[in-house]
Amino acid sequence: MTYNVAILGASGYTGAELVRLIATHPGLQIVGLSGNSKAGMAMADVFPHLRHLDLPVLTTIEDMDFDGVDLVFCALPHATSQAVIAELPKTLKIVDLSADFRLRDPADYEKWYGKGHAATEMQKEAVYGLTEFYREEIKAARLVAGTGCNAATGQYVLRPLIEAGVIDLDQIILDLKAAVSGAGRSLKENLLHAELSEGAHAYSVGGTHRHLGEFDQEFSAIAGRPVKIQFTPHLIPANRGILATTYVQGDPDVIYETLKAAYADEPFIEVLPMGQHPSIKHIRASNFCHIGVVADRIPGRAIVIAALDNLTKGSSGQAIQNANLMLGLPETEGLMLAPVFP
Amino acid sequence: MTYNVAILGASGYTGAELVRLIATHPGLQIVGLSGNSKAGMAMADVFPHLRHLDLPVLTTIEDMDFDGVDLVFCALPHATSQAVIAELPKTLKIVDLSADFRLRDPADYEKWYGKGHAATEMQKEAVYGLTEFYREEIKAARLVAGTGCNAATGQYVLRPLIEAGVIDLDQIILDLKAAVSGAGRSLKENLLHAELSEGAHAYSVGGTHRHLGEFDQEFSAIAGRPVKIQFTPHLIPANRGILATTYVQGDPDVIYETLKAAYADEPFIEVLPMGQHPSIKHIRASNFCHIGVVADRIPGRAIVIAALDNLTKGSSGQAIQNANLMLGLPETEGLMLAPVFP
Amino acid sequence: MTYNVAILGASGYTGAELVRLIATHPGLQIVGLSGNSKAGMAMADVFPHLRHLDLPVLTTIEDMDFDGVDLVFCALPHATSQAVIAELPKTLKIVDLSADFRLRDPADYEKWYGKGHAATEMQKEAVYGLTEFYREEIKAARLVAGTGCNAATGQYVLRPLIEAGVIDLDQIILDLKAAVSGAGRSLKENLLHAELSEGAHAYSVGGTHRHLGEFDQEFSAIAGRPVKIQFTPHLIPANRGILATTYVQGDPDVIYETLKAAYADEPFIEVLPMGQHPSIKHIRASNFCHIGVVADRIPGRAIVIAALDNLTKGSSGQAIQNANLMLGLPETEGLMLAPVFP
Amino acid sequence: MTYNVAILGASGYTGAELVRLIATHPGLQIVGLSGNSKAGMAMADVFPHLRHLDLPVLTTIEDMDFDGVDLVFCALPHATSQAVIAELPKTLKIVDLSADFRLRDPADYEKWYGKGHAATEMQKEAVYGLTEFYREEIKAARLVAGTGCNAATGQYVLRPLIEAGVIDLDQIILDLKAAVSGAGRSLKENLLHAELSEGAHAYSVGGTHRHLGEFDQEFSAIAGRPVKIQFTPHLIPANRGILATTYVQGDPDVIYETLKAAYADEPFIEVLPMGQHPSIKHIRASNFCHIGVVADRIPGRAIVIAALDNLTKGSSGQAIQNANLMLGLPETEGLMLAPVFP
Repeated sequence: MTYNVAILGASGYTGAELVRLIATHPGLQIVGLSGNSKAGMAMADVFPHLRHLDLPVLTTIEDMDFDGVDLVFCALPHATSQAVIAELPKTLKIVDLSADFRLRDPADYEKWYGKGHAATEMQKEAVYGLTEFYREEIKAARLVAGTGCNAATGQYVLRPLIEAGVIDLDQIILDLKAAVSGAGRSLKENLLHAELSEGAHAYSVGGTHRHLGEFDQEFSAIAGRPVKIQFTPHLIPANRGILATTYVQGDPDVIYETLKAAYADEPFIEVLPMGQHPSIKHIRASNFCHIGVVADRIPGRAIVIAALDNLTKGSSGQAIQNANLMLGLPETEGLMLAPVFP
Repeated sequence: MTYNVAILGASGYTGAELVRLIATHPGLQIVGLSGNSKAGMAMADVFPHLRHLDLPVLTTIEDMDFDGVDLVFCALPHATSQAVIAELPKTLKIVDLSADFRLRDPADYEKWYGKGHAATEMQKEAVYGLTEFYREEIKAARLVAGTGCNAATGQYVLRPLIEAGVIDLDQIILDLKAAVSGAGRSLKENLLHAELSEGAHAYSVGGTHRHLGEFDQEFSAIAGRPVKIQFTPHLIPANRGILATTYVQGDPDVIYETLKAAYADEPFIEVLPMGQHPSIKHIRASNFCHIGVVADRIPGRAIVIAALDNLTKGSSGQAIQNANLMLGLPETEGLMLAPVFP
Repeated sequence: MTYNVAILGASGYTGAELVRLIATHPGLQIVGLSGNSKAGMAMADVFPHLRHLDLPVLTTIEDMDFDGVDLVFCALPHATSQAVIAELPKTLKIVDLSADFRLRDPADYEKWYGKGHAATEMQKEAVYGLTEFYREEIKAARLVAGTGCNAATGQYVLRPLIEAGVIDLDQIILDLKAAVSGAGRSLKENLLHAELSEGAHAYSVGGTHRHLGEFDQEFSAIAGRPVKIQFTPHLIPANRGILATTYVQGDPDVIYETLKAAYADEPFIEVLPMGQHPSIKHIRASNFCHIGVVADRIPGRAIVIAALDNLTKGSSGQAIQNANLMLGLPETEGLMLAPVFP
Repeated sequence: MTYNVAILGASGYTGAELVRLIATHPGLQIVGLSGNSKAGMAMADVFPHLRHLDLPVLTTIEDMDFDGVDLVFCALPHATSQAVIAELPKTLKIVDLSADFRLRDPADYEKWYGKGHAATEMQKEAVYGLTEFYREEIKAARLVAGTGCNAATGQYVLRPLIEAGVIDLDQIILDLKAAVSGAGRSLKENLLHAELSEGAHAYSVGGTHRHLGEFDQEFSAIAGRPVKIQFTPHLIPANRGILATTYVQGDPDVIYETLKAAYADEPFIEVLPMGQHPSIKHIRASNFCHIGVVADRIPGRAIVIAALDNLTKGSSGQAIQNANLMLGLPETEGLMLAPVFP
């Protein structure tokens, strides 16, 4: 069975990553691509690495024909997404890769994104797209909200630990190193090769990064009380990958066993043997997430490190994993591509 | 139909690339992996990016059981390869990724590799593995000799032009930029990150690079007279990819049409529209080769630029393409993975 | 003796490089900095790496006080430069880093830059700033036109060879690899880290790069006949450095001796021993240029490779070298900083 | 006044960095260079970027003539250093860049370096080389022990805060990102370009990094009680630079004021305005250290981030700063080179 999908916002990196993955996905076929600023162009002219594929020409969203489309991936910028999705035919299944439907509470949305939500009804309906923890809801959902890439990485470490009650909820520090593609194809000075290569610096320091909205929402819900973590992302001179170094207080062996058990049956989450820890080099361009636990020399403290590819498991791969569930396809279909090394 | 394959020398980069590609290849199954210096280790400990796969433990070649094996990929170092291959069961099909069987004339081998060939009988039998030009011979071959990665890139540009007689055979310059994985996982000072990053330099300047043995052999055979090109490879601070800038003298439009026609039906060779030219960024981690032709401002001269991934189309992808032909599988099976960008 | 200098266009990379070099130059003091779009800002906020320096606040050019200024470095964009320079007080010495005064013939300027020159009188007066070849003229000049960075590199290889008549003037190919800072701090998609890192591609292929205007002008003047070279620049994933691989036809030993003799007394041009060749890693952030000659296996052909840092010897270092001469300071003053490695 | 210096172990990165800095230092002259494995070679053949300098040929340590030498920089590997230094003429002043004399207690040395110290008398005499905090002792010292590069970075953040008693001593986390040159010119697989580029991973996780010996020694001495921090270094794909993200508990404004006051008169330590934070790109190849303080959203917590160049301020620049003091030269002489950007 092959399903027809369309990609809105196909001229960005997550759009291109969706096309890359769907290119060898046996159950999905791309029948529409939109990219407003590049409407009329062939995808090969926007992304020459896709030139071997037989793809639809880019159109505006207005000109796109949704007849026969089973599912839409929406890879539009934040804020744009909610307006577009509100107007889509109600028969369509939708996986949204923007931030617009990640936060359930309109007040939270306004707090983190600086303006009111324009589609609060759909916001209620949306299912949070962290597959391993919302699997059943996703299967039944019409609209799934893809998580933030940093938010996904941190949650893979912390959700099972908070759920199991094995760490101190008031002493959680997440120091994250992010590759640059997470910032998208934006023309910003600090994203230039000359500025970033041989550089490294923090950003959104002090608790201002928007993905904290997701952490706060999810961790507090699990704990049944407010949980606030410290979160400092850093930009490193690499293109793909997130490395999340998490400092927690609790018994390291219990922490390890908790994570090991939580992901025992998960196809994409690999918990390394106790004492080992991952590299972003080892999950690149794949849908896998590697997690490692190391005991600190100070008793009762552990370092848990997770690595995933922000464009794949953190975004477009996750989106396809969710689409598979929504369409009744095998969850791993099209996603078992091995990481690219070196 | 699934065939059983073994990889000798699985602890190097081309070995790892074979495993990566075979991981999602529906017609091949890995039943043996050798790596003499790492015998006894799990592949996940040598290459953590492959840890999600269920792979055989690394063994020595001596301990490998070839019963039931249909085809062997031999990714051993030069010189080692010929000794090992000479001892393998005669029933095995073999794709050799080393340089040992690329040159047909033992004198040429000695000239370029500095010592006599130890398996000259097999040398005669070996088919040169540039798939697009030796397709029928490869289908019937027992032993196929994978080409040099630089040698492949240059030949994709020049073979059709020499064959068609549309360029001056005495004025061919190939200026090549190669990423560092082509040098393998060797512990050499000039391959360290601190030495290569932010660096760029030529190597084997002046006609001393061994892949010239392949160019001389092939181009002279096509032309029916000795052809010697100038060839200067450069190391650039990237991990995968070869960009070959070729300076030829002839009519640019005729050159373009010749290449366009030569590759019209090839699944992996993409000739870009006249005037466009490729980037290694657009073929990364894929089996595709992009070729572009630009006319110079000096009449009668053209620049032809080709890009491919040295580990895929230049080595392990090519090897699988050839294995597919030898086993009667569809030539493109397992190889349609889209390039990884960014 | 300390001279007062001002820098117009101090918010770009060549402006910042001028400040970096002047910071430890005993004979120059910065008394004015302009940067129209950043007027009113402290230099430390535009370039945090300069925050330890006591520098003037950025102003508009209109607001700059030229009283007491001995020399102006003009690091403005092409076309802007000529209009600004025409209005500067006639008492000022000027080193222009733009392309506006490199070409002596207004027709050439129009051909390569696409519009007429607005200050043709000053164009006549300007001295071409390739120090080693225009030293005496520069000492006496009021206006010196800094060369293109690629143009400088190619000329260091070819001028002595053309002058000496030791190479075939109709068979010169310059294949150049350029780091990205040569493109300036422009917000262009292809200059993003995600697009350039792990990439490499040619640009301005076929004889369309503007620096060919300089090559044509200079080489033809030396040869006393029109000389046209083939020139293909490539962008490589590095920040600083130009590697120019030059293919010439002539006796390699004579070529080597010609270059060796030409630069015997030059403080910044190092001709390596015959057979050795340079890396951009070895001249980084310095005013040195390394040149190497290798004989090809084809008799009568040589490869000459030069390396320099586009921002230093190719631009801002060259500018200071010329300013030293114009002000009567020792030519090497402030410029003997050793290259930064690794 | 010019002093004669010798460098032992000049064939490594810190040796080369010493030569680079001394090249434009008016008060120091290099009269001897040793490099046992490269004895007899010209420095230009070991480090081509230094070829413009007139330097002594490399010798063995045994063959070096210490007559007339005022000060020796010892850039030898750990453990080798102590044996060599014990045999040097007692009249020599010595700056040691190895780890051998950093720890004052022989038991600590054995704990962190795995074997007994062979020169415990000299160990007592050695002064710890963190200039800003041991300035007077260094002026009077015969033997100064250069600090670990990571250890320096962490101490610039934490010493004033511990001294002032403004942070919780039991809740200090130092998450550090280190460029690869800190690992030296060693031939290790994980330092290859192909392995590190596009990669990022932690190392020595859990409190096993040797620089913890320095942290424990120094912080406990300042606090007058045992202080143990959590310290996780990470390797990032860059060549120079350390970024230290420090999580502390205390009043952010007090923390900022404490650091601001502590470094008010220091020529190389720049405390950024409150809320700003540094990048390794902005201190590269210089002796400067930038420090920034940001308040976390959780009251009573702050993030303090420091950046320095491991080869300069973290090692060879620090060594020259100390040598200046030992020789009675101005402390900043030869060290005011501006950072190289981009």
